[in-house]
Amino acid sequence: MNDLQAYVILNAAITIPKSRVGRLLEMFGGAKEVFAVRPHDWVGAGRLTHQMAKRLDEARRTFRVDEELRRAERAGVRIMTRDDADYPQNLREIFDPPCVLYVKGTLEPEDKFAVAVVGSRGASYYGLSVARDFAARFASFGLTVVSGMARGIDTAAHRAALDAGARTIAVLGSGFENIYPVENRDLCGQIARSGAVLSEFPLDTAPLAQNFPVRNRIVSGLSKGVLVVEASLRSGALITARLGAEQGREVFAIPGKLSCETSDGTNDLIKNGAHMVTSAEEVLRELAGALCVDAGRSRPAARPAGVPLTEEEERLFVVLNDEPKHIDAICRESALDPARAAALLLQLELKAAVRQVPGRMFIAA
Amino acid sequence: MNDLQAYVILNAAITIPKSRVGRLLEMFGGAKEVFAVRPHDWVGAGRLTHQMAKRLDEARRTFRVDEELRRAERAGVRIMTRDDADYPQNLREIFDPPCVLYVKGTLEPEDKFAVAVVGSRGASYYGLSVARDFAARFASFGLTVVSGMARGIDTAAHRAALDAGARTIAVLGSGFENIYPVENRDLCGQIARSGAVLSEFPLDTAPLAQNFPVRNRIVSGLSKGVLVVEASLRSGALITARLGAEQGREVFAIPGKLSCETSDGTNDLIKNGAHMVTSAEEVLRELAGALCVDAGRSRPAARPAGVPLTEEEERLFVVLNDEPKHIDAICRESALDPARAAALLLQLELKAAVRQVPGRMFIAA
Repeated sequence: MNDLQAYVILNAAITIPKSRVGRLLEMFGGAKEVFAVRPHDWVGAGRLTHQMAKRLDEARRTFRVDEELRRAERAGVRIMTRDDADYPQNLREIFDPPCVLYVKGTLEPEDKFAVAVVGSRGASYYGLSVARDFAARFASFGLTVVSGMARGIDTAAHRAALDAGARTIAVLGSGFENIYPVENRDLCGQIARSGAVLSEFPLDTAPLAQNFPVRNRIVSGLSKGVLVVEASLRSGALITARLGAEQGREVFAIPGKLSCETSDGTNDLIKNGAHMVTSAEEVLRELAGALCVDAGRSRPAARPAGVPLTEEEERLFVVLNDEPKHIDAICRESALDPARAAALLLQLELKAAVRQVPGRMFIAA
Repeated sequence: MNDLQAYVILNAAITIPKSRVGRLLEMFGGAKEVFAVRPHDWVGAGRLTHQMAKRLDEARRTFRVDEELRRAERAGVRIMTRDDADYPQNLREIFDPPCVLYVKGTLEPEDKFAVAVVGSRGASYYGLSVARDFAARFASFGLTVVSGMARGIDTAAHRAALDAGARTIAVLGSGFENIYPVENRDLCGQIARSGAVLSEFPLDTAPLAQNFPVRNRIVSGLSKGVLVVEASLRSGALITARLGAEQGREVFAIPGKLSCETSDGTNDLIKNGAHMVTSAEEVLRELAGALCVDAGRSRPAARPAGVPLTEEEERLFVVLNDEPKHIDAICRESALDPARAAALLLQLELKAAVRQVPGRMFIAA
């Protein structure tokens, strides 16, 4: 058994919480190594329950890992593990990262500049239009739009990002052999071509209700912030918001009318402390810190330097030199408002024209 | 010149801020006394500007106070001064209370349990319906609904309170001889019959734009909290909200759609710290402290004791005895939620069946 096989089997015992799987990996020093010990040790050293150990042992004995790998290959699905260098950085930080991701498309370093846009399946015209507007705006800032490819808000967000020519990531609540909802098969292909479709679930997993909260932690985990556009009080988007908050993500919500069931959940989120936002710029302003710190830490290397600057980027760029300048001074000197300046700085970082130094200071690169 | 005449003249110099008039009254020991000194003393001891002193002197010389008093009497308008015992208690507390109120109808001690419901003149169907719902609910809690009798939200709020048989107070931005808008003359009469219509302005004052912010401080000043139902970014209701906040009133706002101009102002209020509310109960819960403290301090004496209790009041009343009981315990024992319990306790206080003692404790009276 090689490491990839071991990971896929560990992942196939899907009801074992990934936080426990993480502990096993840590305890035994690797995926292969987990299966080099007896189930008894999983309970003792690995702190699985007897029930979990039984299920994992069963997966080891019955899960047809080679067939899974073959079928994945045939379907053009890459199986990525936590050991892979391009495993999403944001997702590494959560409490219970997936040990395996099934991926169609590619994950890029700049996907760490991601915002989740989620909401009701039974969205209103208002919700769909707001989702489109915000996703398009995020796309124009160079952010990756993450969502769940569900009907309604999720679909609107993915489509707006695609239309803007931006990257978007869809996270499935089923295996790749059961794309759900079926009418989104085409969308799935489009997303895979200009972003990525991800699933934590073995290929033949059905879109069962219990998968969706599990999936939602990946949607929020991939993102720096979670925007809930519309949600009834029972909407899964509220779960994404809660998980996001637990993961330390900023949570944003769009206000709506009192008489709209689809706004009850978002209005509730706002009452409970989510940022109420009425423009994408406000989201960016709130996230600017998180986004810029990252940009400074490790600028995406994939982007070629020397990309021409837009007129607006130029306006900001000319106030920079090789002495660190604080963002407040940059805003003042360029006469740009903070949200716009943060967006442009981000774009300039992605173009390798600007570098951030500690203390929200920037220099021309 | 008697005190009433002096007050009316002081008030007739309407451009002198009422905070300055208040200082004059304090300095010279009464309204009559203000006119016993020379204009020069108004500047020195009273700290009026020379311009203000000139205007006040002019009012003394030219304002036909006896005719004003006669015309008021003929129109059934009472002129109340700050010295009157039934001058509204909440209004006494503000920085710049009116020195004179022109009143049609009656002011009652229980009017201190008041909430302002204000908003756009060009309200949407949504806004009008929310205004009606909230005003009706406030009325059912026994609260007095205060507003500005403007078109739109104000009118809807007054009408809902009237329909519920509750007290409502309208504050005019003009004198009583220029009721505005004209289509509200009937409404004005109805409000006067089951509440009060107030104006700070001399009888023949036109509804000039500059009067409305001045009027708005009375709307908020009369109230324990200000609810803004709908407002564009230029709406006068935002001024009422700001003045209310400056007066220490709780400010509440109803969320609305992003695409609605009439919700831009309310959404902005929420972003800037107003309580976002989706039910009248939430307003009551927030105000419960302010309302109950007052109820304890001086129970309205006008209400006869021995009024029969409703079934729900009875349910709360039976858990009380002559040992002080904390509101939390009352909620627990009566299985009523805090908002409802606070509303019922308020009603029971008004019926003189319950008395509050310090520390949010209650005893059967």
